[in-house]
Amino acid sequence: MNHDDILFGILGNAFHCPVLGEFEFLENVLITINTDGEIDSLLKPDEYAVSDIMEVLERENRLVRLKEKQYLIPGLIDLHCHAPQWPQMGKGLDLPLYNWLANYTFPLEAKYQDLEFAKRVYDDLVQSTLSSGTTSAVYFSSIHLEPTRVLADTCLEKGQRAFVGKVCMDDVEQCPDYYRQSVEKSLYETEAFHQYVSTMSGNHGLISSVVTPRFIPSCTEGLLKELGQFATNNNCYVQTHCSESDWAREYSQQKYGETDISVYEKTGLLGRKTILAHSIFLTEQDVIKIQDYGASIAHCPLSNMYFANAAMETRELLNRGLHCGLGSDVAASVTPSMLRSCFDAVTHSRVREEGTSTKLAAGERGEAKTRISFLEAFWMATTGGGKALDKNIGVFRRGFSFDAVLVDANIQDCDLKIWQALDSASDILEKIISTTNRQNIIKVWVQGREVVCKQ
Amino acid sequence: MNHDDILFGILGNAFHCPVLGEFEFLENVLITINTDGEIDSLLKPDEYAVSDIMEVLERENRLVRLKEKQYLIPGLIDLHCHAPQWPQMGKGLDLPLYNWLANYTFPLEAKYQDLEFAKRVYDDLVQSTLSSGTTSAVYFSSIHLEPTRVLADTCLEKGQRAFVGKVCMDDVEQCPDYYRQSVEKSLYETEAFHQYVSTMSGNHGLISSVVTPRFIPSCTEGLLKELGQFATNNNCYVQTHCSESDWAREYSQQKYGETDISVYEKTGLLGRKTILAHSIFLTEQDVIKIQDYGASIAHCPLSNMYFANAAMETRELLNRGLHCGLGSDVAASVTPSMLRSCFDAVTHSRVREEGTSTKLAAGERGEAKTRISFLEAFWMATTGGGKALDKNIGVFRRGFSFDAVLVDANIQDCDLKIWQALDSASDILEKIISTTNRQNIIKVWVQGREVVCKQ
Repeated sequence: MNHDDILFGILGNAFHCPVLGEFEFLENVLITINTDGEIDSLLKPDEYAVSDIMEVLERENRLVRLKEKQYLIPGLIDLHCHAPQWPQMGKGLDLPLYNWLANYTFPLEAKYQDLEFAKRVYDDLVQSTLSSGTTSAVYFSSIHLEPTRVLADTCLEKGQRAFVGKVCMDDVEQCPDYYRQSVEKSLYETEAFHQYVSTMSGNHGLISSVVTPRFIPSCTEGLLKELGQFATNNNCYVQTHCSESDWAREYSQQKYGETDISVYEKTGLLGRKTILAHSIFLTEQDVIKIQDYGASIAHCPLSNMYFANAAMETRELLNRGLHCGLGSDVAASVTPSMLRSCFDAVTHSRVREEGTSTKLAAGERGEAKTRISFLEAFWMATTGGGKALDKNIGVFRRGFSFDAVLVDANIQDCDLKIWQALDSASDILEKIISTTNRQNIIKVWVQGREVVCKQ
Repeated sequence: MNHDDILFGILGNAFHCPVLGEFEFLENVLITINTDGEIDSLLKPDEYAVSDIMEVLERENRLVRLKEKQYLIPGLIDLHCHAPQWPQMGKGLDLPLYNWLANYTFPLEAKYQDLEFAKRVYDDLVQSTLSSGTTSAVYFSSIHLEPTRVLADTCLEKGQRAFVGKVCMDDVEQCPDYYRQSVEKSLYETEAFHQYVSTMSGNHGLISSVVTPRFIPSCTEGLLKELGQFATNNNCYVQTHCSESDWAREYSQQKYGETDISVYEKTGLLGRKTILAHSIFLTEQDVIKIQDYGASIAHCPLSNMYFANAAMETRELLNRGLHCGLGSDVAASVTPSMLRSCFDAVTHSRVREEGTSTKLAAGERGEAKTRISFLEAFWMATTGGGKALDKNIGVFRRGFSFDAVLVDANIQDCDLKIWQALDSASDILEKIISTTNRQNIIKVWVQGREVVCKQ
């Protein structure tokens, strides 16, 4: 048999969650990856035993054999990350959102016109997200074209699948003088960035541009309409914030007498390739529209606990089958780790279900039956993220891109410990979700390319 | 000047929180530690400039000079940790508490009669907690004497300040046949362990024994009374769980017609050296009693979010000045890190304050003005824990034990990043609390002894 189209193979134990709320443990699976970086085959022991593939791969030094307590999981997908806020991560969370933006975020984002600073930060960010297992990231950049190019260049160079948007904000009342652009400049730079990405040398679909109005308060209706038109004409990804807080919801009602979703729909910004961060305060009509358009929600649990004033109705939206993945919302989080986001999503849903007030009776305290499970959270960070982006990623399946993370539980000085006699496959996956830290992630592949190797 | 009583000195930047809600940044401080492991002096630059101490320490190779982006913080204090549950950490959190105990915890705790297993687990646990910066830990062991000795031995050998209790549980209805002891055996082994600790060779107050009734449902009234008597007669530390969940609260009401605190008071278990884990459902009378007796609360935020059915009234209890520190509640948590506990304490208080239900108006959704700050959480993990234990620890002060953690923000592949031009001292401390991982902790001292050194 000819195996020349096989780039390499990986032999070992793997986990993934093709179905919401369930997991598959692929024990001693052989995954082969073709020269396009796609999964060519997944072979069980009784299948590869009768083939010569193992022999060929070993002879040609193209086989990665996982050790005991090493596990392959699908590459993690971050649907919402503010790249320029990277230096801000871990500070200011005591502040209200408005002060957080005004005192920390906008002054920081404005600094990226210094392209050396941009390069330094984005190198560190992309290295950190990859090293944390994020193989696909949806990034808000800053409002300026050149640093946004630097971010796209950095992702391409380091091999991260990235969806990058130049932020647009023009409203004179809501944006500081030093950090806004006119409608014309916003649109011009959005077009220029889209053009840049589509002609980047070596970009074989790894980097996509994203039309990125920040959120309703920072944009005039004119800007939203222009961006909606551009996104529709060019079949672009769109990302924005949606009904994140009481204040944001109220702002749209005051200005338009409508919900965020209605405004996005009317301005042409709602579509299959639209990613809506947060989406806390949705009406029934909003939910129907999101589902009808096939748009996606980026659930950002830790950020929600600090800034959203309420919990996303994750349980209900998953039950209804909406496209829903997870976002770190760096820097409204304290780590880029999407496994931590999984854990935080479960935690927030548990507090939502139980409630908090000891002054209320148990039955009146929380919102019954609203928890999500660890497997559902992990599904969101992998399979759900892939569906949101409409890409063949997030699951180990023939024809899907090989985006994968190798988790090693043998690392000293880490919390992830597997006790062979005590831990079932289900236990091991829950431990991976709950306790992996960056040191446990020793290799990462994107589209078949090894982009992180720590050992 | 004679500096022979100085063991060594440390020169660099340090943070601590002597006052609730505030922090002190000790810039370029020289801390000297005497041969008893206590802080001998804290000298500011203008003070050590006019002394010969630096010269002497450097000449004799007794000076540790911190580098840029290295920070000293007080040793972290974990008021509630179930040592035998260490292998369980990170699994089973989807289960209700009852199943969690019955399916995972009790079978696991019973295994420690195998002393080789006990030694292997406790070696790993104590190394891990120390390596995470926990210089003082209050441990529940299992119900058996011998493995509890192994735990105490391990703490002493590795140099951790530890408060160790052999767990007592005898109620036939609530405890499985394979995991309970008679009143007589519980009491005999509690006494034997107390005796063992008081005569351990080399134990100069580092290890203390703790009288440890598990919680009200697992103990008969007879056992509680015997343990209360013993604790009173011997001026022992006491630890137990208090009003952790609706079920636990209800159980005491059904059995005694009283609250947990009333039962502990009447059985002689409430005193200045009593540590009450959780304490979610307290009546006004309970709070007054806890304060009057000077007992302490171990707030375990992550565990509470999964198992407690409600939030502790941390804000109110801190305002009233109760002794209150933090506990990891391993394995009802996913890390032994007390910095993570700090973060989780803030997060839970924020969700409590904001509420979760989008169906309620903003003003009716949460519990107004109940948040705690990062500095308050850090105070609980250091100063507050020291007060709870009635020990001179948790603050850098002359005469206090030198228990300290060296946090290094220069470590690659970690989330803690300090950007010199952008981060104030306050920002740096918040980043340390929010983003430190175990790799950033490169040295740990307990009572002046270096117990962790990674570089």
